Amino acid sequence: MDPTTGPDATGPTATERLEDELARIDQLEARVRAWVARAEPASLRDAVHAAPAGPLQGFTLGVKDVIDTAELPTERGSPIYRGRRAGVDAACVALARRAGAVVSGKTATTEFAVLTPTHTTNPHDETRTPGGSSSGSAAAVAAGMVRIAFGTQTAGSVIRPAAFCGVAGFKPTYHAVPVTNVNPVAASLDTVGYFATTVADLAAVHQALTGVAAPAAVAAVALRIGVYRSHEWAAADEDTVAGIERAAAALRRAGATVLDVPLVDALADASRDATAIMLSEAARSFAWERAAHEEQLSRGLRSLLAQGDLVGAEAYADAQRGAVLARNGFDAAMTGFDAWLTPAVVGEAPPIATTGDPVFCRVWTMLGGPALTVPSGPGRGGLPVGVQLVGARWADARVLAAGAALDAALAG
Amino acid sequence: MDPTTGPDATGPTATERLEDELARIDQLEARVRAWVARAEPASLRDAVHAAPAGPLQGFTLGVKDVIDTAELPTERGSPIYRGRRAGVDAACVALARRAGAVVSGKTATTEFAVLTPTHTTNPHDETRTPGGSSSGSAAAVAAGMVRIAFGTQTAGSVIRPAAFCGVAGFKPTYHAVPVTNVNPVAASLDTVGYFATTVADLAAVHQALTGVAAPAAVAAVALRIGVYRSHEWAAADEDTVAGIERAAAALRRAGATVLDVPLVDALADASRDATAIMLSEAARSFAWERAAHEEQLSRGLRSLLAQGDLVGAEAYADAQRGAVLARNGFDAAMTGFDAWLTPAVVGEAPPIATTGDPVFCRVWTMLGGPALTVPSGPGRGGLPVGVQLVGARWADARVLAAGAALDAALAG
Repeated sequence: MDPTTGPDATGPTATERLEDELARIDQLEARVRAWVARAEPASLRDAVHAAPAGPLQGFTLGVKDVIDTAELPTERGSPIYRGRRAGVDAACVALARRAGAVVSGKTATTEFAVLTPTHTTNPHDETRTPGGSSSGSAAAVAAGMVRIAFGTQTAGSVIRPAAFCGVAGFKPTYHAVPVTNVNPVAASLDTVGYFATTVADLAAVHQALTGVAAPAAVAAVALRIGVYRSHEWAAADEDTVAGIERAAAALRRAGATVLDVPLVDALADASRDATAIMLSEAARSFAWERAAHEEQLSRGLRSLLAQGDLVGAEAYADAQRGAVLARNGFDAAMTGFDAWLTPAVVGEAPPIATTGDPVFCRVWTMLGGPALTVPSGPGRGGLPVGVQLVGARWADARVLAAGAALDAALAG
Repeated sequence: MDPTTGPDATGPTATERLEDELARIDQLEARVRAWVARAEPASLRDAVHAAPAGPLQGFTLGVKDVIDTAELPTERGSPIYRGRRAGVDAACVALARRAGAVVSGKTATTEFAVLTPTHTTNPHDETRTPGGSSSGSAAAVAAGMVRIAFGTQTAGSVIRPAAFCGVAGFKPTYHAVPVTNVNPVAASLDTVGYFATTVADLAAVHQALTGVAAPAAVAAVALRIGVYRSHEWAAADEDTVAGIERAAAALRRAGATVLDVPLVDALADASRDATAIMLSEAARSFAWERAAHEEQLSRGLRSLLAQGDLVGAEAYADAQRGAVLARNGFDAAMTGFDAWLTPAVVGEAPPIATTGDPVFCRVWTMLGGPALTVPSGPGRGGLPVGVQLVGARWADARVLAAGAALDAALAG
């Protein structure tokens, strides 16, 4: 029997979806370049047909190429690992397969999930970045080439590309999802996240990986949402400011309690601390590649790792101590809220030469709680812009529920 | 020029040490069985002779076999990975090599650094366990087969074997050392640690991996040490109780301020929370091995992972929330102390059928701060027993300095 694709049987079957996705790859991949390796269509058809029962039965899955898979190469966006075959599935991939997902292929990543852009373009405008570092995962979902995709986030590598590509993206609570056989950048920050076109699909992925039950629909009237403009607010452009106002207004109209949250003092230095932790840990995490293959690292990455060398052990410790204080301050300020609404990105996707600025993400990554982006409507250039909901650590289901309500409110 | 081995040139040269180590391997390895793979003596001699300058110049290094190395197999104590060659050095190995260390070989680990014992015996008594899971690393250092060794600790896998084998062992602050290309068990707990015969050597390793300057010698009179008997105190046998009293008395005689610390309420459930986090994360971390090779997992490991499946997402979240409260409670209680003196192990090494109980380690691993064990004198059976010093996160240098003072006081 052909598995169906949603909680009810009224949508297309998984097989019908797959055929549509394969057609879109044929049509769009030459322009979007989301993939670095793909499963054969015939084997995909067989696998979708035979997918085991589970919350992801028959869901096609794109896997960012820093995440190991048994059956396709995992090259990490670096010539050092060209042709590398891991021979094992990362734990998150194994859990997804157990829940019924079928790996469609590996998606393009920036070099080692850091900053050097890959060849992927934004499906909405090929002169714009899809965002990074999970460029191919966001673009493949946005282009309808795959149902769900995995990415990783160390600063803003899930939320930012999702927002630029106009899809939903979720970075769960730190360590809720195993990072086993996912190539690290900075272990204190690295988190596996997911892309989909609906919050319901993100919740299904989260359930498959963590056992957290997909949240029941929550009436907006039961939600208490803070609007947190953040210490980074000055970086938001008109499109993001408008998106926040539009989202807050939609939630209010739907009956939610929406309150402005004053800046949290404990977060004043959080962006600086997150940067110091990332740079210092990355500089040491890539010790082998630097020692054995430095000439195959891009100039940009070498420069960034050299910055990490300069952080110093005492500054790293200070940043980690700062992170503890920031988490405690955030936990206190978040009490009583389901989620805070805050910017996801500066605005629309910038030109393709960069992957955009993670300025509105890195603090939340360091705090470790769930972060969700949903599209908040097009910007002035007609391109997608997302807003972000963030929550307390291990309150993933509440943030997902709030996100579903926000999505519905924005559509309504 | 032959590099020397210490801060001054009065000790044996690295080459002389290596010859002694090779002779001990010839003499003792058939009984101790610390190694699963070794570098060729000729290439070791060349490498020691040519070792680059650095804090570990010419130090021979044993590497636990869950930590990848470019040049020898990394089999993780499991038949699933028999013959596996990683082709890369784990970041910690690359950093040690950069500092002048030379990899002598791979040391025996329990199955995936969990509980199934390996064939290694305690160098002090071949009917006793060397402890686990870093069995071979502790035994190799204790038997004089290598100068330093790497282990990993998720519950008590560095401190416990060090104490059982009568060597110094250090688990640094969580994430101070990169875990890149170290096979995970539970990412919220896994930490790379080190074994050596002196605290000075541990400090040199820590400097090489983190940039934290090796602490200057601290006069005992400047130290403020708490004696923390812990919620697990009832598990301590007479040898451990005597070791704690002996260590506290030695520190007092040397002039340190030594104060009894009352039980910290926030730590009452910490052992339970650490166990829940470990089980739940391990169950998901090994998702691929369970799906693809379950029949090659030992019955004991399968049973432990099945326990992890039963933890449940909400209980896991509760345990993680408990860990946050425990860390905050510990940070407050530790204020004003350089370190706390607390048991490392129940007592002497038990018979070889088990690897011993991590009851006195798992809380400190979860709290994330530095933990150091030094030998506190033989137990009633004439076998080594260690005591433990623990400290606040990122206060590694203070704990190492306190450990050096304790070591000197016990010898004095």
